[in-house]
Amino acid sequence: MELVEKLLKGDTRSVARAITIIEDGGEETHAILKGIYPHTGRAAVIGVTGPFGTGKSSLINKLASALRREDKKVGIVAVDPTSSFSGGAILGDRIRMRDHFLDTGIFIRSMATRGQMGGLARATGDVVDVMDAAGFDTVIVETVGVGQDEVEIVNLVHTTLVVLVPGLGDDIQTFKAGLMEIADIFVINKIDMGNWELVKTQLEMMLALAEETRAWRPQIVETAANDGIGIDKLMEQIGKHQDYFLHSNEHDEKDKKKSLHRMRDILSDRIWSALQGHLSGQETLDSLVRRIVKKEIDPYTAVDYLTGKILQLENLEKRTE
Amino acid sequence: MELVEKLLKGDTRSVARAITIIEDGGEETHAILKGIYPHTGRAAVIGVTGPFGTGKSSLINKLASALRREDKKVGIVAVDPTSSFSGGAILGDRIRMRDHFLDTGIFIRSMATRGQMGGLARATGDVVDVMDAAGFDTVIVETVGVGQDEVEIVNLVHTTLVVLVPGLGDDIQTFKAGLMEIADIFVINKIDMGNWELVKTQLEMMLALAEETRAWRPQIVETAANDGIGIDKLMEQIGKHQDYFLHSNEHDEKDKKKSLHRMRDILSDRIWSALQGHLSGQETLDSLVRRIVKKEIDPYTAVDYLTGKILQLENLEKRTE
Repeated sequence: MELVEKLLKGDTRSVARAITIIEDGGEETHAILKGIYPHTGRAAVIGVTGPFGTGKSSLINKLASALRREDKKVGIVAVDPTSSFSGGAILGDRIRMRDHFLDTGIFIRSMATRGQMGGLARATGDVVDVMDAAGFDTVIVETVGVGQDEVEIVNLVHTTLVVLVPGLGDDIQTFKAGLMEIADIFVINKIDMGNWELVKTQLEMMLALAEETRAWRPQIVETAANDGIGIDKLMEQIGKHQDYFLHSNEHDEKDKKKSLHRMRDILSDRIWSALQGHLSGQETLDSLVRRIVKKEIDPYTAVDYLTGKILQLENLEKRTE
Repeated sequence: MELVEKLLKGDTRSVARAITIIEDGGEETHAILKGIYPHTGRAAVIGVTGPFGTGKSSLINKLASALRREDKKVGIVAVDPTSSFSGGAILGDRIRMRDHFLDTGIFIRSMATRGQMGGLARATGDVVDVMDAAGFDTVIVETVGVGQDEVEIVNLVHTTLVVLVPGLGDDIQTFKAGLMEIADIFVINKIDMGNWELVKTQLEMMLALAEETRAWRPQIVETAANDGIGIDKLMEQIGKHQDYFLHSNEHDEKDKKKSLHRMRDILSDRIWSALQGHLSGQETLDSLVRRIVKKEIDPYTAVDYLTGKILQLENLEKRTE
């Protein structure tokens, strides 16, 4: 496939085209992903997450600049869950990252879910794979919050930065378990706001009290990304974590989880499409939904009907014996 | 089923037991949900969402008190995505809501995802249904953030409150599309922090510029929940929105979406379990995952194999002709 060949040589336009095809769920999706798959697994993948208002985008901007100075090609995937509401990607991040607009060693892409169900994590994984295969040395994935989707996205990345700001201190307690599990590096950003020592103390207490279930001990780095403060220190910690990660069994575990989730997502999509194509006449998916809404049947009974339509494994096997 | 009969009479212990069974995915899940389904659809379901640190729990606490004064039975579902990391529910909310610990007209439940994939929204819907069928007049669902999961949870509720605090002003622009789509009422909480007028002005500008796609115009209410300020006003707006909602086509649309999502989730779970049970010998799900990780096959090809195992509708139909 010509597109894949060009993409593998790092052609930026082919990267963009491939991503668009994948996002739209175009016919060639399967062929593209199949073609690039053997060439993936080389990029360092960094996740940047945290509540909104913590300055993740400007932090990423500075990280990207630092990586560019090391002559690394950088891909950025802005996963913007809010776009799932509007159906379109928000341009904000791209505008804020305008420093890099004219740099061909950097590639920025915003993701939108376009109403797919559970599709965001998978689509993000596919886009990371495309950038990876196209020879980007580092791929940075930006997500908002700590919802279920983000958990799945965390499984796609090697190093997760959790970005906090002064003033979030009180809430750290509540989020303890979640933060501890995903954070490789805590970034306290906007330290120019002052009063960041409280957040740091609380994080330190939390880390001191945590059970040691991992060989990696999460680090805390203070930054004021807008002024470029703390970025070198952050780069250093990211490097250290990458060294650790690549030689740990966490790498293998994450790969397994990612593969399992992806396989299941793809399967679910495919079965649903097949059902939509197959059902016709009196009982369509729409008519089932209408009957559920009217409380004529419950959703579990509706699924009994649907599995009766597809899941006749037993019968099928008996018949072929 | 005895459990269902007791539950429908409002027996609190049966409600708790039913929820536990459903959360654990116990054998009786199907029977319980089937039994209660015809009795659902009566409760007013209110969603409370927003970033962490905005004081959602104490706001809910005050709303619950106000509803109790009207002699309404209140169910609270705290959907805590962070718990999906640790496998356990966080007690924080329950502790903060201790005012209601001894009140039998109130029932509080924290949700944890326990590692299920895409299961949080469905499990939440099931728990809301249980409370609804058990005669709770109002069910309040608390979620964090605006991820994909929250979008699905929003589909479960009738009235969505988006809680903000002073200081989030700058970020409202970024979140415009998402917020506008889900919010029925904006709550600016913690107005005692001062400087809340900026957030309000930005929300007002946003609302003024928004296209009118709905008959309901989102309202803005200022509160200082800790001091009980603004709660009456908020109750009034919630009442107005409920009146609107019940007579609008949004009600029907949400019911349809909810039913469709739920049907699809249940189907996906069931097929996956069936596959796990069915595959054996050389090629199990585990061995497929291992081959994907080693890049011997790509996930799409793995799914081809799996669909070959289940999705033989065509063949089956031909054979029965």
